[in-house]
Amino acid sequence: MVFDLSHGLPILARTPRVLRTLLEDLAPAWTDGTEGPDTWSPYVVVGHLIHGEKTDWIPRARIILAQGPDRRFAPYDRLAQFRESAGMSLADLLDEFETLRADNVRTLTAWQLTDEQLALTGEHPAFGPVTLRQLLATWVAHDLSHLTQVTRVMAKQYRETVGPWRAYLSVMDR
Amino acid sequence: MVFDLSHGLPILARTPRVLRTLLEDLAPAWTDGTEGPDTWSPYVVVGHLIHGEKTDWIPRARIILAQGPDRRFAPYDRLAQFRESAGMSLADLLDEFETLRADNVRTLTAWQLTDEQLALTGEHPAFGPVTLRQLLATWVAHDLSHLTQVTRVMAKQYRETVGPWRAYLSVMDR
Repeated sequence: MVFDLSHGLPILARTPRVLRTLLEDLAPAWTDGTEGPDTWSPYVVVGHLIHGEKTDWIPRARIILAQGPDRRFAPYDRLAQFRESAGMSLADLLDEFETLRADNVRTLTAWQLTDEQLALTGEHPAFGPVTLRQLLATWVAHDLSHLTQVTRVMAKQYRETVGPWRAYLSVMDR
Repeated sequence: MVFDLSHGLPILARTPRVLRTLLEDLAPAWTDGTEGPDTWSPYVVVGHLIHGEKTDWIPRARIILAQGPDRRFAPYDRLAQFRESAGMSLADLLDEFETLRADNVRTLTAWQLTDEQLALTGEHPAFGPVTLRQLLATWVAHDLSHLTQVTRVMAKQYRETVGPWRAYLSVMDR
């Protein structure tokens, strides 16, 4: 499947609502559970997604679209949420993510990107040249991959309590 | 985390809405995509969840609660959805799942299960004795594991189009 705005935008637009539907008002045993030391809880993932809205996807797209002399992206800070979410409740984070994402989806829609623009490139700090199309497809896939993570982390909280059924639930040992 | 109705029920109650929020009105390229031959699309997963509502979780719980002479469960038909969903749209399936699940959550809530009842056993065709607590925990974990699957299958539709970012998206190769 090639990235196409008409396919990718609906995913970007609904992720905040998916996370809210899944997580809002759940017990902390679900939302603060992890997969072990140095792994992320659903709460941490929402903070990470917020950081991406602020510093990654749209800012990188702007660098590509501007086609200035320096098209190098700033590296993504994968630990920012531990600092930036400090003192915030999950409800706060879900609200913030929803607002930021809605703004960014509006920005992306308003650009009315052409195929020529989607083929423009920026420079990724590790990979080198990447196209705007790859960046936007990654934004969508990144959402889906963190939804995979959140639901997997939640499933694992029941790893022991399912008893022998663990043998049928491959998610428990991924 | 030990299974507790107050923790498990909110997950069971919200899964239909999570799937609706994620999938409703999406292009078939998302909802009919798979991970390759003999793997399931999001559409197939919703049909599978419907079959479980009809034949697995609550019927098995009733067998345990009745404590009759034969407490053996009927084996789960993992291919039933290919027959039963025939001719139905995803919108139909999302509606049916929501209705069946709401009924089943009402039934489960009305039982007001005690710890003694949660410790009663039935006989699984492969594992032998299993408790009602394990069955209900598995129902919850089964929901979460299929949400993991659905979002992973969707992410993989962009496996190629993300370009070099595939190296950062471990979900693509799970």
